[in-house]
Amino acid sequence: MPEFKTVCHTLTADLKTGPDIRDITPELQAFVTSSGVSAGVLHLFVIGSTGSLTTIEYEPGVVADLKRAITALAPADQEYAHEQAWHDGNGHSHVQAALMGPSLSVPVRDQRLVTGTWQQVVVINHDNGPRKRKIALNLTGVTV
Amino acid sequence: MPEFKTVCHTLTADLKTGPDIRDITPELQAFVTSSGVSAGVLHLFVIGSTGSLTTIEYEPGVVADLKRAITALAPADQEYAHEQAWHDGNGHSHVQAALMGPSLSVPVRDQRLVTGTWQQVVVINHDNGPRKRKIALNLTGVTV
Amino acid sequence: MPEFKTVCHTLTADLKTGPDIRDITPELQAFVTSSGVSAGVLHLFVIGSTGSLTTIEYEPGVVADLKRAITALAPADQEYAHEQAWHDGNGHSHVQAALMGPSLSVPVRDQRLVTGTWQQVVVINHDNGPRKRKIALNLTGVTV
Repeated sequence: MPEFKTVCHTLTADLKTGPDIRDITPELQAFVTSSGVSAGVLHLFVIGSTGSLTTIEYEPGVVADLKRAITALAPADQEYAHEQAWHDGNGHSHVQAALMGPSLSVPVRDQRLVTGTWQQVVVINHDNGPRKRKIALNLTGVTV
Repeated sequence: MPEFKTVCHTLTADLKTGPDIRDITPELQAFVTSSGVSAGVLHLFVIGSTGSLTTIEYEPGVVADLKRAITALAPADQEYAHEQAWHDGNGHSHVQAALMGPSLSVPVRDQRLVTGTWQQVVVINHDNGPRKRKIALNLTGVTV
Repeated sequence: MPEFKTVCHTLTADLKTGPDIRDITPELQAFVTSSGVSAGVLHLFVIGSTGSLTTIEYEPGVVADLKRAITALAPADQEYAHEQAWHDGNGHSHVQAALMGPSLSVPVRDQRLVTGTWQQVVVINHDNGPRKRKIALNLTGVTV
């Protein structure tokens, strides 16, 4: 008999100095498949205040265009009040990540993520150095 | 006896060349009413990488202002790396949609969407031509 | 025996003239603790079209930097079509809030919000006067 459940997992993704963008769709689909949940929603949340999540057509052109647009929102070479207190060089990273947002919810049906053919889920590192980003996953829905 | 369930539906909305913005609140409320769910959350996800979702006061002034701001984030007349590979003229559409984000979650109580009086849920088409946008809906909550 | 449930609450936060940013993490954690839900997702939605939600490292520098970036997205001293119809002086508020987005989903495990050490959940008032912002909370998950 179908059962309602929520399945938790934490995904880890290695990213380069920001803005760096990585496709995590295959890992997410593997998690959905292993969860036993047939219909519901996969909630993603990037842990830490210099990461974000969105969807894009993951091809080198869009990746380059989005990096440029993110940089324009908060360029690294501007002055930041965060710098004056902390001197860690990532004032722009905090602003970029806050504007993009840390959470994303993707529907699941028939044990598949419901995304477009040319639409991939990506995690973005905005920090001024490489980061192992952690993404908390919560899949809530009914089993087969 | 109240029962926990998740109800799936796919909404279709005709939109003009982007940025075009359409109020889908009435269709969403009709879905909530028909679902039998009394309290929970309606999760929305626009399928495809050139659409997005947000809420606005849906009146012609705000619609015009938001279109202008979206265009400023990624103007159509700039050069895009996506163009150089695909020549489909929608590099700006991809960037705009990725910055806005594809998902939105709206609370439901007493079988009503919990939105402000002057706050409507809108789908945005960023593509460089008219599009029939598909929005996956998942309503998760308890029945009356 | 663990039970699946959704717990609703409405949080109220006093904010100054926008852009004003307030940390609501302690209130959210108190709600999670009192709910009895052990694992799931806390969904937040700001009611009204001139408020938004995101996460930041809540320290005065980042707060000042984010305020500046939000203002740059839609400055108060530009002309807005919304103004011409309503003359209420908050055209920029509507645009800023629509770009930031009204919803956020934060994971919960072991009765704790899963956020980074330097990552706080904030509500933003974009309106051109002080506002008592209402945030609808829906915590969906399993009890202990």
